[in-house]
Amino acid sequence: MDFTGNLIVISGPSGTGKGTICKKLLDEHKTLTYSISATTRQPRTGETHGINYWFTDKIEFERMIEQEELLEWAEVYGNYYGTPLARVQEVLKNGQDVILEIDPQGAMNVKKKFPQGVFIYIIPPSMTELEKRIRGRGTDSDESIARRLKAACDEIRMGVYYNYVVVNDEITVAANKIAAIVEAEKCNVLRNTDLLRQICEDKGE
Amino acid sequence: MDFTGNLIVISGPSGTGKGTICKKLLDEHKTLTYSISATTRQPRTGETHGINYWFTDKIEFERMIEQEELLEWAEVYGNYYGTPLARVQEVLKNGQDVILEIDPQGAMNVKKKFPQGVFIYIIPPSMTELEKRIRGRGTDSDESIARRLKAACDEIRMGVYYNYVVVNDEITVAANKIAAIVEAEKCNVLRNTDLLRQICEDKGE
Repeated sequence: MDFTGNLIVISGPSGTGKGTICKKLLDEHKTLTYSISATTRQPRTGETHGINYWFTDKIEFERMIEQEELLEWAEVYGNYYGTPLARVQEVLKNGQDVILEIDPQGAMNVKKKFPQGVFIYIIPPSMTELEKRIRGRGTDSDESIARRLKAACDEIRMGVYYNYVVVNDEITVAANKIAAIVEAEKCNVLRNTDLLRQICEDKGE
Repeated sequence: MDFTGNLIVISGPSGTGKGTICKKLLDEHKTLTYSISATTRQPRTGETHGINYWFTDKIEFERMIEQEELLEWAEVYGNYYGTPLARVQEVLKNGQDVILEIDPQGAMNVKKKFPQGVFIYIIPPSMTELEKRIRGRGTDSDESIARRLKAACDEIRMGVYYNYVVVNDEITVAANKIAAIVEAEKCNVLRNTDLLRQICEDKGE
């Protein structure tokens, strides 16, 4: 497994800003490759096939499920969403890191299939701050906000199943922390056992 | 153990440049604290008590060994060298990271007493390169060089007992990798379990 890229899975409760952090990270680190999801939902205005999503139909998606061509998948409001495995594997083999931004349930499904991935959990600095952000959107009723906060609280506890926890106090700081994790993981001893062996074989020539 | 600093142990075979890397790292990251060793050897010209070493005598050093006041210690050519534990603990409690640069045998002794430390192993890019560096010093005979290369080769294999392996291809790059590891380790989930719990207790106030 040496000399290949790492699969970096970024997740967190909804409202913690993981999408914004990923965008910042990808903008500033051009060597990182974003994993594009496949979906059966219709493209929205401005969305491009192969950039925002791989748009496909139900028959093709179900064939991919059947053939185990997806790293993970889910059905949301009657539409399928999933991560094509072949593309991820291809990028990793080229030695590049892949960023996969995904909800907590999806992240745990990826962990089952790909435990050697690097699992990063983004959390809000406090529940008070998370409430402020959700209220700030102005799209949720009080009841909905209470429900979302309760769900986020349960989700935050799931952070223990990840390798890293990043507090989203400030977007740039959080993105830099993820960049540091990406760098550090290249040096993780578990990813360098072949290297340790090979250097010793090159004894003085 | 949350909200405390990390003990960063930097080691590697002799000739890999760990001293130079540490100096670079400490020069550029002022929040890191260097762990100063205690020794019974005489100060050399230009060495200052409390900066290069804590200079002490044999009776005092043996008292420290006796009282278990040292994180690790060794006797080299009749002189004692060791790491005072109290100072390390004090800095860590203040939430600052401590850098301990030490030979591989010392690093493994630290690991026994302080397994929660972050253990980083610096290796040369190749044995050929290491030979070139040792020859470049012009202080070793061919026989001595061959012996040192053999020893380094055995030591490199010990890298598997560390958390991270950093190849010293270029000083600045290697120092930046260590800086990334230091940042990443602050986000290590094992060091943030209290945080995950506490945020949930702060449910919307």
